[in-house]
Amino acid sequence: MQIDEQDLKTIVDDFEFLIKQRQNAKLRNMLISMHSSDIAEIANRLDDPDRLYLFELLDAEDASEVILEMDEVNREELVEQMAKERLSELVDEMDSDDAADFVSELDKETQKEVLEKVETEDVREVEELLKHREDTAGGIMALEIVSVPEDCTVDGAIKEIRQKADEVAEIYNVYIVDHEQKLLGIVPVRDLIIARGNRKISEIMDRDFLSVPVTMDQEAVANFARKYDLVSVPVVDEQNRLLGRITIDDIVDVMEEEATEDIHKMAGFTDEEEVRERAILRIVRARIPWLVWGLFGGLISASVMVNFESNLKEQIVLAYFVPVIMAMAGNIGIQSSALVVRGLATGEIAVHDYLSRCGKELGISVLNGLILATILFTVVAFGWNDENSNPYQLAFLISSALVMVIIIAGLLGSTIPLLLKRLNIDPALATGPFITTSNDIIGLFIYLSIATQLL
Amino acid sequence: MQIDEQDLKTIVDDFEFLIKQRQNAKLRNMLISMHSSDIAEIANRLDDPDRLYLFELLDAEDASEVILEMDEVNREELVEQMAKERLSELVDEMDSDDAADFVSELDKETQKEVLEKVETEDVREVEELLKHREDTAGGIMALEIVSVPEDCTVDGAIKEIRQKADEVAEIYNVYIVDHEQKLLGIVPVRDLIIARGNRKISEIMDRDFLSVPVTMDQEAVANFARKYDLVSVPVVDEQNRLLGRITIDDIVDVMEEEATEDIHKMAGFTDEEEVRERAILRIVRARIPWLVWGLFGGLISASVMVNFESNLKEQIVLAYFVPVIMAMAGNIGIQSSALVVRGLATGEIAVHDYLSRCGKELGISVLNGLILATILFTVVAFGWNDENSNPYQLAFLISSALVMVIIIAGLLGSTIPLLLKRLNIDPALATGPFITTSNDIIGLFIYLSIATQLL
Repeated sequence: MQIDEQDLKTIVDDFEFLIKQRQNAKLRNMLISMHSSDIAEIANRLDDPDRLYLFELLDAEDASEVILEMDEVNREELVEQMAKERLSELVDEMDSDDAADFVSELDKETQKEVLEKVETEDVREVEELLKHREDTAGGIMALEIVSVPEDCTVDGAIKEIRQKADEVAEIYNVYIVDHEQKLLGIVPVRDLIIARGNRKISEIMDRDFLSVPVTMDQEAVANFARKYDLVSVPVVDEQNRLLGRITIDDIVDVMEEEATEDIHKMAGFTDEEEVRERAILRIVRARIPWLVWGLFGGLISASVMVNFESNLKEQIVLAYFVPVIMAMAGNIGIQSSALVVRGLATGEIAVHDYLSRCGKELGISVLNGLILATILFTVVAFGWNDENSNPYQLAFLISSALVMVIIIAGLLGSTIPLLLKRLNIDPALATGPFITTSNDIIGLFIYLSIATQLL
Repeated sequence: MQIDEQDLKTIVDDFEFLIKQRQNAKLRNMLISMHSSDIAEIANRLDDPDRLYLFELLDAEDASEVILEMDEVNREELVEQMAKERLSELVDEMDSDDAADFVSELDKETQKEVLEKVETEDVREVEELLKHREDTAGGIMALEIVSVPEDCTVDGAIKEIRQKADEVAEIYNVYIVDHEQKLLGIVPVRDLIIARGNRKISEIMDRDFLSVPVTMDQEAVANFARKYDLVSVPVVDEQNRLLGRITIDDIVDVMEEEATEDIHKMAGFTDEEEVRERAILRIVRARIPWLVWGLFGGLISASVMVNFESNLKEQIVLAYFVPVIMAMAGNIGIQSSALVVRGLATGEIAVHDYLSRCGKELGISVLNGLILATILFTVVAFGWNDENSNPYQLAFLISSALVMVIIIAGLLGSTIPLLLKRLNIDPALATGPFITTSNDIIGLFIYLSIATQLL
């Protein structure tokens, strides 16, 4: 059964009602026909005691799936209320990668308590995985794989798949390893079906396979899988020993997470803000740093204006066009930087494209500048009534300043992200308030300087 | 062989050298060990005659893969130079979905010429697919599937897979259909391996499968596949007849494309700008509309200031804080709107969350406003020297205006995208220049009105 957004509200209401009435049989019946992602969606929307009640109706396997699909904010709340033993049961049911992610979210003390009651083998796996950095291939890989030695036959590999069927939920490839666990080749499950049963697996395996090192950044892993259309990526150590695999569903989550993170950074969040975060203080903490920066940037702009006080007092009309200059500097900077930041994230732009990128952005800015300046000149020269100034002179002054400001904003917008990337700083940080504020200050300074020169 | 960014430049140089020398044997040798995505990356970077030369060295199958992996801008150029017959050969090699995408990019005349030489069966498939809108499930699905009737055995299904192995490159699921092609169930390939050969397929099939309607928007399909962790999604018509399937590699491309599109729209592009687009005029055409909007927005702000001319002339200091107000209105608006736009795209925020979203954003804005106003008050009251005005009065005036501006900018930023979504307009359009410009104008008006009241 699939549930769309409209239905969800009704279903949540039904659940609340049935939970109140303690109609466990009915509730279980509804839950049985639902996908764990949909149950998670409902759990996200239920209030505290109801949610816990719902979870008690689920068996450990279903509960482990549902809790993983819930959003972080609600999961945290739920985990705090659940008994440690129950948490251990859930961890026992999870795949190694999910178990490690889940455990890593718990505080140290709960972690210890929960792991005490988990099976030794699973604990070992979780601890193995927790050694890797969270945002690397090692941090997102699972240890559940089907691997066979190279002298195995196709039938032997099929037998191995049957044996591991319970443990490994999704099997796309069988990995062929030598006695040191070094990866020699890959056979897709589909090829096992097609091949004769008595063939040696080494004869049909793909030796020219693709793998990623355990330390690779997760965004790079996602770009890698996307580029080569991989459903499952083997992870190896420096000696090419097979450590685990990353499946596409986790890669899809990484892509989503990284795109959201970039958009939030571009918009000026310092920390990731969970959409469902309810603690306003926590949200403000993520949003305020760049805002303070923007405030001080504005104050610097104010000081720039103070420096031109005598000109401004003489020709107050100059102040009126400050919003025009600032708006254009901001918009141009955001356009050029967003393109570069996203291109760097998807791998379409490389750091060494620096010069060609600058050249192109210069061309674009000059053309944009001329078009916009022409419009501005026309509007001011023929549409602006100001008794104290010559409209043509004023129009010429403002539009030539605009061209300058646009060119500089375009160049800064496209080069600062490339520069940051080269310095190994996340370029997404540059796009939002940083570039806008810098462009405001520089743009204002250019505008007022030109105005003073020309008046 | 995998190639990273650093190597790529060297390899492109090598290729240019070898092509100049017409060292075909060496070139073929290099190409044979390379993945089609990497060859495409090289082709993207080669100049015109070299690229064409490279393509002549590839057989039709490899060439068809490489051309699909190239970026749109370079592919277009290449296609113009290739012989129509060669293009027909390539289309013959492609999967139905890729063939349809490829053909749809050609101009009408070339389309006709190319399809004339393609096999009749393939032409029928392409024409079938081209009927669906490009950005729907029908537009991204492939027709290559393995389906069997419900009385088929496991061995029978395996036989069917073997027969279709050439045609269907990736097989994750076998679909079970009735005599009217209505989808009854799904069996993952892995389950075929595990089950006994003489079992009826209907006994092991999953009847509670997930499918998408052919008209579903591609972004919704991507969210669907991500939510339910699907590697392959069956596409059905209104009568639940199986039409095709969408595989995860295409879904991953959709996700990437949609995120890029949103980021570009948020940054104020009206059309998608290809990162590698070389035609500056085309780029400017995509960027200029919102810039013109921003320019007129700036002029409206200028008129707002003219309206307060007497106050500004009397207290020029008011003009100095215009950049502060504008910068804050812009930054706050971008933060709150980016969160909502992204949340709507990933499905984390629903349109009916309107009221709770507003409430939360109000809380955040009030808190942000109070913090920032306190900072601004302190800086102006104790750090600003202005002989013509009382620093405390000035500080109070500006910081109370700031609080107002921040609250309104936060509310507009979070509600306008929700409003647009409800009106079926893409909310990403709202985030960039639209909200920033509106916030500038409104912010400026509020600021100057309060200033006039208080002075």
